[in-house]
Amino acid sequence: MLGLMQDWPLLCHRIIDHAATYHAERPVVTRSVEGPIVTTTYARIRERALKVAQRLEKDGIKAGDRVATMAWNTWRHLETWYGILGIGAVYHTVNPRLFPDQIVWIVNHAEDRMMIADLTFVPLLEKIAGRLPTIERYVILTDAAHMPKTTLKNAVAYEDWIAEVDGDFAWKSFDENTAAGMCYTSGTTGEPKGVLYSHRSNVLHAFMAALPDSKGIKSRDVVLPVVPFFHANGWSLAFSTPMVGAALIMPGPKLDGASIYELLNTYKVTFTAAVPTVWLMLLQDLEKTGADLPYLERVVIGGSACPRAMTKTFQDKYGVEVIHAWGMTEMSPLGSLCTMKPEYAALTGEARLDVQMKQGHPPFGVEMKITDDAGKTLPWDGKTFGRLKVRGPAVAKAYFKLDQDILDDDGFFDTGDVATIDPYGYMQVTDRSKDVIKSGGEWISSIDLENLAVGHPKVAEAAVIGVHHPKWDERPLLVIVLKKGEQASKEDILGFMQGRIAKWWMPDDVVFVDEIPHTATGKIQKTVLRDRFRDYRLPTAEAAE
Amino acid sequence: MLGLMQDWPLLCHRIIDHAATYHAERPVVTRSVEGPIVTTTYARIRERALKVAQRLEKDGIKAGDRVATMAWNTWRHLETWYGILGIGAVYHTVNPRLFPDQIVWIVNHAEDRMMIADLTFVPLLEKIAGRLPTIERYVILTDAAHMPKTTLKNAVAYEDWIAEVDGDFAWKSFDENTAAGMCYTSGTTGEPKGVLYSHRSNVLHAFMAALPDSKGIKSRDVVLPVVPFFHANGWSLAFSTPMVGAALIMPGPKLDGASIYELLNTYKVTFTAAVPTVWLMLLQDLEKTGADLPYLERVVIGGSACPRAMTKTFQDKYGVEVIHAWGMTEMSPLGSLCTMKPEYAALTGEARLDVQMKQGHPPFGVEMKITDDAGKTLPWDGKTFGRLKVRGPAVAKAYFKLDQDILDDDGFFDTGDVATIDPYGYMQVTDRSKDVIKSGGEWISSIDLENLAVGHPKVAEAAVIGVHHPKWDERPLLVIVLKKGEQASKEDILGFMQGRIAKWWMPDDVVFVDEIPHTATGKIQKTVLRDRFRDYRLPTAEAAE
Repeated sequence: MLGLMQDWPLLCHRIIDHAATYHAERPVVTRSVEGPIVTTTYARIRERALKVAQRLEKDGIKAGDRVATMAWNTWRHLETWYGILGIGAVYHTVNPRLFPDQIVWIVNHAEDRMMIADLTFVPLLEKIAGRLPTIERYVILTDAAHMPKTTLKNAVAYEDWIAEVDGDFAWKSFDENTAAGMCYTSGTTGEPKGVLYSHRSNVLHAFMAALPDSKGIKSRDVVLPVVPFFHANGWSLAFSTPMVGAALIMPGPKLDGASIYELLNTYKVTFTAAVPTVWLMLLQDLEKTGADLPYLERVVIGGSACPRAMTKTFQDKYGVEVIHAWGMTEMSPLGSLCTMKPEYAALTGEARLDVQMKQGHPPFGVEMKITDDAGKTLPWDGKTFGRLKVRGPAVAKAYFKLDQDILDDDGFFDTGDVATIDPYGYMQVTDRSKDVIKSGGEWISSIDLENLAVGHPKVAEAAVIGVHHPKWDERPLLVIVLKKGEQASKEDILGFMQGRIAKWWMPDDVVFVDEIPHTATGKIQKTVLRDRFRDYRLPTAEAAE
Repeated sequence: MLGLMQDWPLLCHRIIDHAATYHAERPVVTRSVEGPIVTTTYARIRERALKVAQRLEKDGIKAGDRVATMAWNTWRHLETWYGILGIGAVYHTVNPRLFPDQIVWIVNHAEDRMMIADLTFVPLLEKIAGRLPTIERYVILTDAAHMPKTTLKNAVAYEDWIAEVDGDFAWKSFDENTAAGMCYTSGTTGEPKGVLYSHRSNVLHAFMAALPDSKGIKSRDVVLPVVPFFHANGWSLAFSTPMVGAALIMPGPKLDGASIYELLNTYKVTFTAAVPTVWLMLLQDLEKTGADLPYLERVVIGGSACPRAMTKTFQDKYGVEVIHAWGMTEMSPLGSLCTMKPEYAALTGEARLDVQMKQGHPPFGVEMKITDDAGKTLPWDGKTFGRLKVRGPAVAKAYFKLDQDILDDDGFFDTGDVATIDPYGYMQVTDRSKDVIKSGGEWISSIDLENLAVGHPKVAEAAVIGVHHPKWDERPLLVIVLKKGEQASKEDILGFMQGRIAKWWMPDDVVFVDEIPHTATGKIQKTVLRDRFRDYRLPTAEAAE
């Protein structure tokens, strides 16, 4: 027997309807790509998004078609998302920081029919446009006055483009499982993989993200998403912020410390979110200028592990609560946030920081488990680490055009992370499963060893990989880049580590290199390192043979 | 094209799974019907709910079957809900405060197969059991030691009943639109009507209810639902509280001021919710004892309009924020909450109270409009009032076994309330549409007139109804009950009202009566009054003829 409640599909464009109705005049402020600060409102954004939708239809864009955006966080970018969503087409955020060849690969794989891009990226696009045969038209997010001369096909200034329709248009309605958005993972190995969000998953994820134990945002907040919308579905901020009607402040292309500080201060931002690198720039700028952060209440830090010193500085020096978060493109992307449950709420000082080094607990709608390689569930004791697997309505079940089963028998997705979970459900990432060293059936965390090694005063960067060992299967090899002008021996480094980790975790050897290879997004390319040291013979291997 | 996100139906029992996993040891405390305080946890509640599910199956209860509960807020009542939900059966909360004939009608209409009831209601049930042929078994929510001798069919003590299974059981999974719960409206006219919630509507509604601008509850809160679970789906507290993992304190049968105060104080309750009558008792008790409310942060007041003096007392005297709320059984039930948007956040004193007299704004997932009788949408100016209509995924589209279209052409449900909406989207109920007086095509609010009349020092209670008028169609008649021993004339009363309302709103006549008729739930029975004064001849009618 079915219930007798209304059929009201969870459609993303209902979010901008809600904001435009109940928070009509709430300010939406952008540092524009052209330079000046531009202020608009949710009501105005909805009006213009309707024009985008109408204009897309006029250009022949249909439900299911992919429309690429390569753009900073601006009001125009937000309008294009909702316009695309409102006709059942799919926004495909393209990360401009990828290598040009990767961008070409992604756009062709997605078969994007249109590219909506910021001025910033016109030169890049002109270079690769010849290799993007599916793109029929380029819309540049600017007005006629700033429109450059360009060779891009059917190029038009956004303001001119939407001025060609009258906005007398109504959103389409359709199944909430309809594809809404697309984002390719920038993994360290293999081809990029396309994650395809649905309207349902985006709306449910926005609910999960806005809850008091997650981001806890409300209409009285002023939200500054520094994390770009092209980074993992913009951490839901393009949805959860209008859902609750908070003011929205957007940094456009300027993510440096001084520019971000200016926005935080001028618009009395209460909530912001970005990766650690951005906050490092902000904290350095504050250090230099001696300014403080009187309005900012909370900062979400994710994308990679947040350094302890950063959490401490935000909280102790500036009175800003740090919410350490974890997620991935395949999870829409939020998986967990480190807000305080009653069990930890009374902690202070270093004990509180210990908890905050964890990536936290998931909201209702994300299930987690850790397992060994055979899929056996491991205990939540805060020590045992295993493959982290997740399940939920905003978690991917497949990749675009990839006929490959990515879920286990219980429907869980393997995140590729290795983690512990403590008795209160706080998860902490200890490694990537590709990088963990499997020694005699036990696991050694490469990240723990790296973090320890970089604590040595002469070490600039460290990477740990597993190399073949005849007896233990794999043993850790420590790869070191020394600080400029410094000298150190294998014995210096190992001597420093001795006693600070279990004896069987100690690297079997240390090699010194000039440089460690990185991906476009700054991650260590361990695959390259593993290739380079494929035939490396550990001194301990000889002894074992 | 569909998205590629996981199929994860929104099932209510996933909520207790989440609570039992991530908030396993959070205290759930009840003042038991037997007397003592009983403490359990979400983990234990889930374990025992699994036993309920397994035991229900053993008794032959199948998906879609209705299982009635007539019970106070207790841990056992919560266990039965989740147990019933976990096999796809339907919890049907029966309001024990209804007249016995109404209860008989409702249980027969629902065709409940089982009745799970508190000790309190055994005598009542024994009286009507002969007229409840569909009930195959009575489960009494107690243990063997407290089980009374009873004539109820197949009666068994709950603890004995669930002890007959081992709990080795897994929840069923099914379509999220499956019926989950049932609650009959206790309208003032006609037969009761059954609202049938789905798993999806309950889960989405819990998300909406928990958002920071709604109840804003989090795992660090201690939540005391004074509003009974049998009142309008328990205002979602049986779902939204475990969803966020807050501690749960339940009052059992004792809702008097002293008993509620004891729980608020002992368990450091931060959040509570109930109708104004309950809070009147609490405030009177506090006045008498001189106690204060050092832990309580927020109180949700709904069910009927919250008096201004009550809001003022809670806030000014006890430092507790009042959240005025509105909803109805057909809305799961929350429709709007009066939390402060930035436009009003800086208000203090009487200006803030003016806003707090409104019932507030809806979360994402509730759409509102006000219309005239012809269905034309009316402006949101805070003055114009019209029929309040709502739409959303947790709003009813039909009643159980009633083949009757209850939505307008745009899918909106007419709430039967008359309301204004201000430019910021704050709704204020001004009347019931049945009760509004339609004078010459314009509407007069009966509630406004009643509120004004009871301001007269000699008036105990007032009711206003429309009576036929040859020229104006309807004109207001004021019905007055004077305070004991007081005397007043028509001219006294009208003189008091003169100048405080528009001239054309003034009642055309005043009649004095000994008593005004009420329903079982304490609402004025205007239908009875209208019947009594059907042929009443207004003095102004004669003049017009």
